[in-house]
Amino acid sequence: MTPAVPLEPVLEILAVFVGALSGGLAAVRKQFDVFGVLVLAWAAGLGGGVLRDVLIGATPPVGIADWRLIAAACLGGAVMYLFHPRLERARRMIAVLDAGALALFTVAGTIKGAELGAGPVAAVCVGGLTGVGGGVLRDLLTGEVPAVLHQRELYAVPAIVGAALTSTLWSTGALTVVSVTVAVGVVFGLRLAAMRFRLQAPGPWTGMTWGRRRGSGRMDA
Amino acid sequence: MTPAVPLEPVLEILAVFVGALSGGLAAVRKQFDVFGVLVLAWAAGLGGGVLRDVLIGATPPVGIADWRLIAAACLGGAVMYLFHPRLERARRMIAVLDAGALALFTVAGTIKGAELGAGPVAAVCVGGLTGVGGGVLRDLLTGEVPAVLHQRELYAVPAIVGAALTSTLWSTGALTVVSVTVAVGVVFGLRLAAMRFRLQAPGPWTGMTWGRRRGSGRMDA
Amino acid sequence: MTPAVPLEPVLEILAVFVGALSGGLAAVRKQFDVFGVLVLAWAAGLGGGVLRDVLIGATPPVGIADWRLIAAACLGGAVMYLFHPRLERARRMIAVLDAGALALFTVAGTIKGAELGAGPVAAVCVGGLTGVGGGVLRDLLTGEVPAVLHQRELYAVPAIVGAALTSTLWSTGALTVVSVTVAVGVVFGLRLAAMRFRLQAPGPWTGMTWGRRRGSGRMDA
Repeated sequence: MTPAVPLEPVLEILAVFVGALSGGLAAVRKQFDVFGVLVLAWAAGLGGGVLRDVLIGATPPVGIADWRLIAAACLGGAVMYLFHPRLERARRMIAVLDAGALALFTVAGTIKGAELGAGPVAAVCVGGLTGVGGGVLRDLLTGEVPAVLHQRELYAVPAIVGAALTSTLWSTGALTVVSVTVAVGVVFGLRLAAMRFRLQAPGPWTGMTWGRRRGSGRMDA
Repeated sequence: MTPAVPLEPVLEILAVFVGALSGGLAAVRKQFDVFGVLVLAWAAGLGGGVLRDVLIGATPPVGIADWRLIAAACLGGAVMYLFHPRLERARRMIAVLDAGALALFTVAGTIKGAELGAGPVAAVCVGGLTGVGGGVLRDLLTGEVPAVLHQRELYAVPAIVGAALTSTLWSTGALTVVSVTVAVGVVFGLRLAAMRFRLQAPGPWTGMTWGRRRGSGRMDA
Repeated sequence: MTPAVPLEPVLEILAVFVGALSGGLAAVRKQFDVFGVLVLAWAAGLGGGVLRDVLIGATPPVGIADWRLIAAACLGGAVMYLFHPRLERARRMIAVLDAGALALFTVAGTIKGAELGAGPVAAVCVGGLTGVGGGVLRDLLTGEVPAVLHQRELYAVPAIVGAALTSTLWSTGALTVVSVTVAVGVVFGLRLAAMRFRLQAPGPWTGMTWGRRRGSGRMDA
């Protein structure tokens, strides 16, 4: 997470902290002990970056090597462990902060992938994965199906759009503080719009049949 | 996936496509949205190769870097999303194609592992993992226990046999277009035979006791 | 797993074998077939080391490359598959052996991380992960929430303490056969004490509210 365009370390640490809150909350809801809460906070805050670094060969990943980021994740977990009844009520604010973390992680992850020579396609993949990976790891470790895969409200789509935009900016040499800020704003704005207007991905499709449409298309799992 | 013996890129792309169908089907059955279907298709079609590349240090993995393979996986997901009622009925044909994908992935994965200096044992491991890894990832992401671990019909065994055969061919310098084709055919044939004759791995064992056999050996979980 | 301080290969192989027993037992309880039992044994015995090696870039991981370790893991799985009714009754002894495996894995993993230049923080992380990672993988593959995250009896804490101690010894150049033995003994002793005296991590916290304490703090998941 050392992009050429300096992403304020303060912002990065804040993003990890916010991501960690969602992990801590999931662990508290599952009645995990304090250690489990801290691990889930770490997984949610830094898991996306760890996956990214493993995929692009940047070992050891910052998520296990940079003590400031680890401290930020643990702090997020500890705060959620101690104050979760109050923070439950601030869920809306946390969701907005989480949208900001998604935006920062995605753009920073794409830039890091591109800089390490991952190529434009891989940069988009690792950028999007940096954004959503922490949440996927959080859900797997709590025994849930990853929310990003079945909760229809747009979450990954803003990340993919932002990663594609950032990768294009990088490839064309147009990556400046201004354009990076715009890319972060696009992800953030799309995610906020998805929350505000309940933008959803198309759900289960009844299925297209070449002859005629089926009466009932819902599939039995 | 650039074996010395040229595995027809068309075959490789087809294998990814077929693998992706199984992921798309699992996602459709879980009522995932269209994005979740595409991700599951990607995971099932390319997850084995991504695990292989991470384990042998070939980063970034082709599964996130080669746009043709990603496109093949997404196409598989899209086809399953749109046409799943019809494809459900073609399940038998998909299973046969899947046996072909298993064979291609296993042999190609073993060769790539051997070429990157993984050593014969590791080459067998990554070869087998390339074959079955996509299915494991698909099952984990849909909240299922990996089918390969508990569905007794032989699936991993053909992969391991084929990987061992391929690794032996590579070590002895006997890897030719003909011998690779034979190895692919062995995996494919074993898997088809397992399906046709319901060949099963030994199931839960009642347990051996040194003194005398127990009357009832089924364990309570 | 080639620490500068020679960890007796016999001990290492024994640790893998013992770790594999816990994986085999979990698989037997889930009624997996013989192949699933062997894979779970491999995952529990060698998964922590594989995660460690991937995170520090030591590819291919010893867990897929060293046939002696793979054989030890498979032997553990086979023994559990064949003799599980009798071994169930020896659960207490297995738990003690497992504490020894935790200690050996943690200290050896920390040293390997440090030697490969992971830095002190990352060395502690990969050391602890080497110790607990096999169990996490075992639980995920059997569809369980990782026990280390929610079973309150201390398991990860001894590993983290031991990893921090080992990393400190390495950083200060104080790593000798004696000090390594002490570090292993600390992890082993802490884990045994946790089992004997039921030492537990703080559980779900009722939550701190700034105004007044809540009457009922248990959260509904």
